[in-house]
Amino acid sequence: MAKEYVDIYTLKYLLYQVHGLDKLLETERYKDHDLASLDLFLDSVKEFSDRELYPYFKEMDQNPAQYQNGTVMVHKQVDVVMKKAGEMGIIAGPLDYDVGGLQIPFMIHTASTYIQEAANNHLPGYPGLTQGAAELIVHFGDDYLNKTYVPNMLAGKWGGTMCLTEPQAGSSLSDITTKAIPTQEGHYNIAGQKIFISGGDHQYAENIVHLLLARIEGAPSGTKGISLFVVPKNRVNKDGSLSKNDVHTVADFQKMGQRGYTTTHLGFGDSGDCRGWLVGEPHKGLKYMFLMMNSARISVGRGAAAISMAAYHASLQYAKERPQGRKLSSDGKKNPDEKPSLIIEHPDVRRMLLLQKAIAEGSLSLVLKAAKYYDLIQSTADKADKGKYRLLLEMIIPIVKAYPTEAGAIAVSNGLQVLGGYGYCNDFILQQYFRDIRIFSIYEGTTGIQSQDLLGRKIPLENGKALELLLTEILGTITLAMTFKDLHSQAKILGDKIKLTRKVLEFLTPFAKKGNYERYLADANLFMEFFAHVTIGWIWLEMAVRAQQSLEEKNQTYSKEFYESKIHSMKFYFKYELTKTLSLAESLMHDDTLTISDMRNIF
Amino acid sequence: MAKEYVDIYTLKYLLYQVHGLDKLLETERYKDHDLASLDLFLDSVKEFSDRELYPYFKEMDQNPAQYQNGTVMVHKQVDVVMKKAGEMGIIAGPLDYDVGGLQIPFMIHTASTYIQEAANNHLPGYPGLTQGAAELIVHFGDDYLNKTYVPNMLAGKWGGTMCLTEPQAGSSLSDITTKAIPTQEGHYNIAGQKIFISGGDHQYAENIVHLLLARIEGAPSGTKGISLFVVPKNRVNKDGSLSKNDVHTVADFQKMGQRGYTTTHLGFGDSGDCRGWLVGEPHKGLKYMFLMMNSARISVGRGAAAISMAAYHASLQYAKERPQGRKLSSDGKKNPDEKPSLIIEHPDVRRMLLLQKAIAEGSLSLVLKAAKYYDLIQSTADKADKGKYRLLLEMIIPIVKAYPTEAGAIAVSNGLQVLGGYGYCNDFILQQYFRDIRIFSIYEGTTGIQSQDLLGRKIPLENGKALELLLTEILGTITLAMTFKDLHSQAKILGDKIKLTRKVLEFLTPFAKKGNYERYLADANLFMEFFAHVTIGWIWLEMAVRAQQSLEEKNQTYSKEFYESKIHSMKFYFKYELTKTLSLAESLMHDDTLTISDMRNIF
Repeated sequence: MAKEYVDIYTLKYLLYQVHGLDKLLETERYKDHDLASLDLFLDSVKEFSDRELYPYFKEMDQNPAQYQNGTVMVHKQVDVVMKKAGEMGIIAGPLDYDVGGLQIPFMIHTASTYIQEAANNHLPGYPGLTQGAAELIVHFGDDYLNKTYVPNMLAGKWGGTMCLTEPQAGSSLSDITTKAIPTQEGHYNIAGQKIFISGGDHQYAENIVHLLLARIEGAPSGTKGISLFVVPKNRVNKDGSLSKNDVHTVADFQKMGQRGYTTTHLGFGDSGDCRGWLVGEPHKGLKYMFLMMNSARISVGRGAAAISMAAYHASLQYAKERPQGRKLSSDGKKNPDEKPSLIIEHPDVRRMLLLQKAIAEGSLSLVLKAAKYYDLIQSTADKADKGKYRLLLEMIIPIVKAYPTEAGAIAVSNGLQVLGGYGYCNDFILQQYFRDIRIFSIYEGTTGIQSQDLLGRKIPLENGKALELLLTEILGTITLAMTFKDLHSQAKILGDKIKLTRKVLEFLTPFAKKGNYERYLADANLFMEFFAHVTIGWIWLEMAVRAQQSLEEKNQTYSKEFYESKIHSMKFYFKYELTKTLSLAESLMHDDTLTISDMRNIF
Repeated sequence: MAKEYVDIYTLKYLLYQVHGLDKLLETERYKDHDLASLDLFLDSVKEFSDRELYPYFKEMDQNPAQYQNGTVMVHKQVDVVMKKAGEMGIIAGPLDYDVGGLQIPFMIHTASTYIQEAANNHLPGYPGLTQGAAELIVHFGDDYLNKTYVPNMLAGKWGGTMCLTEPQAGSSLSDITTKAIPTQEGHYNIAGQKIFISGGDHQYAENIVHLLLARIEGAPSGTKGISLFVVPKNRVNKDGSLSKNDVHTVADFQKMGQRGYTTTHLGFGDSGDCRGWLVGEPHKGLKYMFLMMNSARISVGRGAAAISMAAYHASLQYAKERPQGRKLSSDGKKNPDEKPSLIIEHPDVRRMLLLQKAIAEGSLSLVLKAAKYYDLIQSTADKADKGKYRLLLEMIIPIVKAYPTEAGAIAVSNGLQVLGGYGYCNDFILQQYFRDIRIFSIYEGTTGIQSQDLLGRKIPLENGKALELLLTEILGTITLAMTFKDLHSQAKILGDKIKLTRKVLEFLTPFAKKGNYERYLADANLFMEFFAHVTIGWIWLEMAVRAQQSLEEKNQTYSKEFYESKIHSMKFYFKYELTKTLSLAESLMHDDTLTISDMRNIF
């Protein structure tokens, strides 16, 4: 295990200097908070993570959560962390005062969870999903559901889950078949199977509150006939006591990574006695679920960003301590009598480390940007501004989900490579990060699904208004960067990438207009990669602008080297990563259609 | 587990039609063999792999080789496969008749091992390294060593290893410190530690013959003072009996993947009684070892190519069987009352499958190309031709090692993604391929080392002669492709890539000429990626030319669809992969030097 798993300085730099948390605190919603207290909160979360999360990271992998006799046995820290997360206000944090929340900015909540995930990504999902489930009840549930379930969930006493996927349907929610039959007593009888349920059961849970998608008898087919239910593992009797609700843990899924975070297969109503309570109106379940999906997708991007940061630190430490090989002298030879160099001296090792840094910090800043939009939607009084931030958030959500998870996996793989053979061995932690991060581009909608969302729904959103708003933001940063001589060249390059984006869309859009959606979306995955690079180019330029300003203002909050390193990483991103847009654009505007399904059999 | 793990038709197509094995059989060296008997041999290897390798693939992962009380306990199939490999002539196969070999073409040996590795990559290393160790003795050892060790090794009775790496030195062989002290009796006393020894010990081995690098007392420092020794686990007494040779298994390395293939830490001479026998002359150990390194590196590329092929088949089968989601209709919507599509109907799934196919088959053809050069060096009588093939082989070796291992890992990751959440679960095999293949870009020289070799040694080799020979070969294929209207466009593109290669080298070479090797080699890794793409573009165009010829000649050996699928995959490679050279060239010719080590502290 490495000495450090997170760069708390960069995290705070992004929060306070780049994304201007202070301005957010001037709004009505967040006026009770000040920077000093939030800063202390983050320090306390770091300390908590040092003590309760990081030390158990490896052993949770080695002793995975495991199905045993009808329940799942998880590591004891699940219990500790759930309760502490309740006590520390981590679960209730971002919720409104009137439902028992602390109304802390989502940016701070994001930073807090990021630290925990960097420390041990197997644990924060338990309180995290509990929070998500509680929020669904808060937003859409009636008074009875709120009173009955939410307080114990926010306190970390009861867990919460999201039950969407079914064995036969996978990502295709229109095919779910779990049944809900209305009863005279007001509740519904639930019957069906759900798989891939994160945190679906464990031995410490007094109760688990499942937010479940099901089809009310006679509902229309497809996504328009899906309703949302609260289905507790144990139902709450009038006197507050609990009794079983015919929810059974059928099995668990043993996985390649994130092995301490249980993934379960649940059966509902096997004995015909499972009760569910409708949340909101019938047939609107998917709509409710998707209103919460944005924060769920930010969470996944955040978790992957956190793992890539932790892996970066582990490989950086190794590179700084491990002597091996020698530098080339000017005759192209190496002198064996010289002392070996540290491997961080080798350019290729530095390249791998800088790649990790560029991806990890770029991902983090993108995630915080999304959290900021989220906060602005909540806190801005002006209706037009609210609408603007909502569109900006919608626009970047698929990228926030896809980029940190896809690029993060590459970053971690480079981190493993820095250690050579040791990186592949269980004695070193890199191989665990490598396995853990691989799930992030799958759950909460695969990269394929995010890409369809980006090109198929977000780019055309409100006739391209969301896209134009985002491009305007990017152009704003470019204009600012142009005022600094040292950033001039990269500012110009990013401007050219905006033009290239338009060119690519001009090539693709006619396919959609002609009704050939299959062709329009066939390379959506490449478009995601292309547009994510442009977006991260912007994110890095923004970081560099702030650093350059600080250098010129002789701002002493951070060292000169700190600011310079941000500009250096930006340049690295532009040289090694943003350049990829060139090839991607060429592929995207290629005339060959090789993946459309009605072609001859090619497999 | 999937029904199939290898595409034997494509393998034979490449051997017989693309790489013209028949011509090779006309040479003196291989005249005893004919296509029919070699074809039968491959079928018997496939049958052997079906029976003795593939069924144990998963359980060898789940019950890894494990150190216990001074030895390593491996799966029982290690014993079975070692002995069968001896009986079937797999170990002795490519060796000369006069040392007990069968003189089969290296191309066939490569195909045979490829099949075994696709079936179960945890097993073929045991006989494979034994063969490599035996070959070192055959080529450089004296009569005593040959008589004493080689027959039992070729028979699969005794194992063999290569002992290079030491704990303090890693990949830097100039820093090895294992000592060899001459004695009056002719042998040397050996003392030192070796790590990462594949197949270094197991309970079934009657004996293991270690080919070990050590430094004779008083030898010059660096790589010029390294000698090669035979150090058996048990020494052979005059009466043929065995007695212990003070070689101890200190520990093993538990790894993320390839867990059935033991990686050991060996101690030599802990009690001062470990004897080694010099191979060849003193101080020439590294030279001998490197003469064998080419085939070792081909082996690693081959193994990775095999895993990517097996993973492709597993994900292809899933995609053909799994219904999920629906195709978009012309209004951009999906009709939930329609039957779900098979996921292979979705363009993005087809893209992931075609990417796997393009990488897996491209890698295989490249590996067979290297094997063909290897055979031509052995079998060509003409001295100039021999020299030409030697240079061609030297030129492509780093690519043969790096491309299948790096691109293969991407291919397998795409295979895992095809299965969605199931891909991440232990019940499906993709996650095992994903873990297994990750070691291939590390051992036998990391991709970083291969890239330094390519740009630092191979490109300048004999004043660029090796490069020119390769480019001439590529231009030959382009000229041929130009004669087919359907291949014209891709032929032209590949021609442009040759020009781009020259342009990149014109940018880089001056740095080397001015003695700034650090700058010249700083982005060697990118150059590798660039040049490997050009090379695989050639490999695919060559495959497509042969397919197009067959189509026009109405050659019935394979179906029309088979030939068409090769041309389709070639086009896929050109659209989605070869395009990457554009961005890589831009990065390579970028003026920013961001990874050179004497810059300010940026981490």
